Amino acid sequence: MVQITLPDKSIKEFPEAVDGYEIAKSISPRLAKDVLSVSVNGEVWDLTRKITKNATVKLHTWDDREGKETFWHSSAHLMAEAIEHFFPGTKFGIGPTVDTGFYYDIDLPEGKQLSEKDLQKIEQKMLELARQKNEIVRSEISKEDALNMFTTKNDELKLELISELEDGTITLYNQGNFTDLCRGPHLPNTGFIKAIKLTSIAGAYWRGDEHNKMLTRVYGVTFPKQKMLEEYLAMLEEAKKRDHRKIGKEMELFTFSEEVGQGLPLWLPKGTQLRMQLEDFLKKVQKKYGYEQVMTPHIGDVRLYKTSGHYEKYGKDSFQTIKTPAEGEEYMLKPMNCPHHCEIYKWKPKSYKDLPIRMAEFGTVYRYEMSGELHGLTRVRGFTQDDAHIFCRPDQLKDEFKKVIDIIFIIFKAIDFKDYTAQISLRDPEKPEKYIGSKENWDKAEQAIIEACEEKGLKTVTELGEAAFYGPKLDFMIKDALGRNWQLGTIQVDYNLPERFQLEYIGADDNRHRPVMIHRAPFGSMERFIAVLIEHTAGKFPLWLTPEQAVVLPISEKYNDYAKKVSNFLNISDIRTVVDERNEKIGRKIRDNELKRIPYLLIVGEKETETETVSVRRQGEGDKGSMKTSEFADFVLNEVRDQLSGLYN
Amino acid sequence: MVQITLPDKSIKEFPEAVDGYEIAKSISPRLAKDVLSVSVNGEVWDLTRKITKNATVKLHTWDDREGKETFWHSSAHLMAEAIEHFFPGTKFGIGPTVDTGFYYDIDLPEGKQLSEKDLQKIEQKMLELARQKNEIVRSEISKEDALNMFTTKNDELKLELISELEDGTITLYNQGNFTDLCRGPHLPNTGFIKAIKLTSIAGAYWRGDEHNKMLTRVYGVTFPKQKMLEEYLAMLEEAKKRDHRKIGKEMELFTFSEEVGQGLPLWLPKGTQLRMQLEDFLKKVQKKYGYEQVMTPHIGDVRLYKTSGHYEKYGKDSFQTIKTPAEGEEYMLKPMNCPHHCEIYKWKPKSYKDLPIRMAEFGTVYRYEMSGELHGLTRVRGFTQDDAHIFCRPDQLKDEFKKVIDIIFIIFKAIDFKDYTAQISLRDPEKPEKYIGSKENWDKAEQAIIEACEEKGLKTVTELGEAAFYGPKLDFMIKDALGRNWQLGTIQVDYNLPERFQLEYIGADDNRHRPVMIHRAPFGSMERFIAVLIEHTAGKFPLWLTPEQAVVLPISEKYNDYAKKVSNFLNISDIRTVVDERNEKIGRKIRDNELKRIPYLLIVGEKETETETVSVRRQGEGDKGSMKTSEFADFVLNEVRDQLSGLYN
Repeated sequence: MVQITLPDKSIKEFPEAVDGYEIAKSISPRLAKDVLSVSVNGEVWDLTRKITKNATVKLHTWDDREGKETFWHSSAHLMAEAIEHFFPGTKFGIGPTVDTGFYYDIDLPEGKQLSEKDLQKIEQKMLELARQKNEIVRSEISKEDALNMFTTKNDELKLELISELEDGTITLYNQGNFTDLCRGPHLPNTGFIKAIKLTSIAGAYWRGDEHNKMLTRVYGVTFPKQKMLEEYLAMLEEAKKRDHRKIGKEMELFTFSEEVGQGLPLWLPKGTQLRMQLEDFLKKVQKKYGYEQVMTPHIGDVRLYKTSGHYEKYGKDSFQTIKTPAEGEEYMLKPMNCPHHCEIYKWKPKSYKDLPIRMAEFGTVYRYEMSGELHGLTRVRGFTQDDAHIFCRPDQLKDEFKKVIDIIFIIFKAIDFKDYTAQISLRDPEKPEKYIGSKENWDKAEQAIIEACEEKGLKTVTELGEAAFYGPKLDFMIKDALGRNWQLGTIQVDYNLPERFQLEYIGADDNRHRPVMIHRAPFGSMERFIAVLIEHTAGKFPLWLTPEQAVVLPISEKYNDYAKKVSNFLNISDIRTVVDERNEKIGRKIRDNELKRIPYLLIVGEKETETETVSVRRQGEGDKGSMKTSEFADFVLNEVRDQLSGLYN
Repeated sequence: MVQITLPDKSIKEFPEAVDGYEIAKSISPRLAKDVLSVSVNGEVWDLTRKITKNATVKLHTWDDREGKETFWHSSAHLMAEAIEHFFPGTKFGIGPTVDTGFYYDIDLPEGKQLSEKDLQKIEQKMLELARQKNEIVRSEISKEDALNMFTTKNDELKLELISELEDGTITLYNQGNFTDLCRGPHLPNTGFIKAIKLTSIAGAYWRGDEHNKMLTRVYGVTFPKQKMLEEYLAMLEEAKKRDHRKIGKEMELFTFSEEVGQGLPLWLPKGTQLRMQLEDFLKKVQKKYGYEQVMTPHIGDVRLYKTSGHYEKYGKDSFQTIKTPAEGEEYMLKPMNCPHHCEIYKWKPKSYKDLPIRMAEFGTVYRYEMSGELHGLTRVRGFTQDDAHIFCRPDQLKDEFKKVIDIIFIIFKAIDFKDYTAQISLRDPEKPEKYIGSKENWDKAEQAIIEACEEKGLKTVTELGEAAFYGPKLDFMIKDALGRNWQLGTIQVDYNLPERFQLEYIGADDNRHRPVMIHRAPFGSMERFIAVLIEHTAGKFPLWLTPEQAVVLPISEKYNDYAKKVSNFLNISDIRTVVDERNEKIGRKIRDNELKRIPYLLIVGEKETETETVSVRRQGEGDKGSMKTSEFADFVLNEVRDQLSGLYN
């Protein structure tokens, strides 16, 4: 008899060894149809592999990361089979899954290359092989047999991999005419794969080492339904249009310069306006919540990071230290603001009455990333965090947590992020030794987070063992307009830094106590947040936020003076307005300014000049009729007020 | 016959050799009374030294730097004479002048030390010697005689100095019983010195080298009138009270931390509020003048500074370069913002119609200073410039210059700096090879500055040869409430960086042209400006600017709730208000908050709570009676509006 414990803690008993598919079938026919792989005591297995002893299992479908990985892993093998069909003698390196899809690094026979046309042929062959529903069979093999097999195949890449494995751990997977060295798991058969797209070809050094041979990397993605592939391709197409690097250029928000350095954005005037608008907004919200702004330098003595522990942990992978002409001094670009804020906390003694202290800074930090890892504004080497540290007493933790949740909600509302989830990360209850701080404090902190979320009516998932070693946390994930997930707004409890910096306050009992620290940055970084915002809105920012709210378009140069008069009036009324004075046709001016995503286009000609009106177009919506300039100003100011209503006061 | 050319180019003829005193007497009896030394063909001479050939001369009085230096230099000799009187056998090192006064490094006889009481004795002796009006006599001497003389005196310090001099260049000065090796010049006699104060004693290594013997450094200051000394001592006393480091601590504006590093200020909440208020103010003014804000990183590839020329010039005395884990990359903390702004200029091609571009950034820069040079906020290693660069066509230079002068005037007015002077620095017309850029452009630029100042009605002095090699400039000096001068607001024309960065615009003629750059930072740096502001106002900032405009003081804890209600109302009305909720006597609360320089103290007790009023005290002015809270709000908002009226709009 085999006892199977399911995630809901219920137990199913089976008379003899059972596989994942059979377990799924015993639960529901629908699940049996959808299941792709199974976790057995935490290890992902083939659906058809027999479970012979009592075990805890979890069934995986397309909705799980593990299910998708099984699916794409088998798809990589399928691709390899198709490639071998067309290019016999190809040697196969490794074929892992990626965020969306999979790749295989291959060494084509001498003189062969892959073209776009080849990719189409391979896709067709894969579909043909998939339709054959070839069984994918796992077998265990001795190291000697494995070496013999791939020696025969003359595949020195696999031989290199096998030589590093221990005997007794080697498995093969076979489907149709293709056998691969592989740890698995895989789908039961190739028939699960219904839709295939090979997306790109790239060069890649064998095992990522530039001293090795350059291989061909083929990327692909597959789905269990044709419709899913179509949706995915449409999303890719839309994502390309919304790429923040492209829109950032069109809207003149930011640029990069090789001379300044990679991953170091230069904010152009309109991007700076956008950033300042976001910063001012958050400053106002934070002021309402009792935050105080501070400013600290962008470097610190290396001792500071030795105290914080950052130097030991990240020092050698970071920007290196800065020496001075005098000996005995050594500085570092600050990779985070917390050590500086701890030093500010310490500048004078604190009493329990002084807490909570909410210390905020738009602090620019520098972290080294390899140049290959850099990407637009989402992966940079210098970025500004909307950072704050709350120093509080343990009994204040829940209340402070709730207030941070409030602030995050205000931001989500202002930016119109409607679709978000939250995750509470707690200790692994079985590994108490992993965590710093007393059990009592952890219990209190975890309880505070759970209750704060409940009291705020927040739907959460709770993950055990996902807490940092120095404290539990709450993470927010938002889903953007294209359905992509972005992590924003972590709230992290910290018992470690107060200890390392020996922060103290005098309690009501006249004794010294350690404050608790909360780290939080609702935007995360201004750079990444703006990138997400661009891709979420396709550059059509909320009216209150967008750098230029209106542009005046004179029909001909004759009306430039009136256009400037309108623009001056609107700017004095706090509506960010520019004039397009170029000597271009009005149609061209409209097109160009629509591309700049300016929400209001105000066309002025003879009639408007005479009647002191503007002819209003809303970007993407077309003509809104004409109105007095002052009416238009009221109209826009009301729209802005509506967007922000209830946020500040 | 000797022809003497005076600074106004007039020529005086004398039948035979003449000295400075005789020249002064020939001009006016008053001048003859005041004159202290004389420049002869650019070299400062004793007043009694005969001029035997035609020469260009300038007479120096107490109002000149050179006059004061002569006075203080003779005072150092006088002090040495008095010290030798009390401590025969003392050896004398060097005795130069400093900013205010002079010092002498001396080696007292074995076992002797100077006490405060000794200083008083020495002062008295100096006064006695001064009243004797002993003539100060210059003599030339051979190196051999000089060596013999100081060997007899057993003064190895002087012997070391003499051994480094060339024969034929050695002069001695004698007064009374004291003879010193000295280049001069000196006063005619000791009688000029009427008021004496020896200010302090310090240790100093001989010739500043820590391997040498530690000498005793005695500081002093002297004046031609007793009243001047009294005023000076009163000023010193007041300056001590106004020291920005002291007030910065009392008002909780900023602090330093050894762990973060020397010369790297940490801005506390109130100091940050002050900075942000200044920044917002300047941003608004600059927006009105067509400036656009940008943001750039705090580091740049070292190539950037090789292009700009800064690396070659300052590299080895600066913070050293930052290496990365990957090879071939090297960054520098940015010592200035201009190279980054040049890169922004270049991000897309420019036409003559795009100019002027006025690019502003509150840019934090880092420059290494030796730790001994650091001083509060006036000499730091990291500071934020209110920087902007104007890229314009040569024909726009005058207009842009005038607009920058406007902005500087607006700031001086807002801060209530009434006493300022301006200096125009032009080329040395005799050394055209020193300057980069065409003669034509220089002529234009110098003319533009001169005319801009004239048209703005600015009183200026013009200095030839004081221009930087890359362009002429205009400097503003302000005199603070203690009569001390501070340089603020340089406007610098630059032909060099546009050349080095190959900046271009397409002219109306369809050809490529170089723009001209103007550097300007009216505040200079936020750090230094705030230091000056603190010392000028003794921390009593203008109401619009001060971090906390009002504090509510409940008479007892019973009225804390009403106090908070008042504070909330005022904060919502945009008046920065705090509550002093401490359980202290009202007298103590008033004293403590006066020390924090909060302009309005609002006392609330039973009567105020019942009538919804506040009892108003103006800091330093006392009771202003009671008024409705809303009346008080209007009153304060009006005062702020009055202070800023006409500045923004």
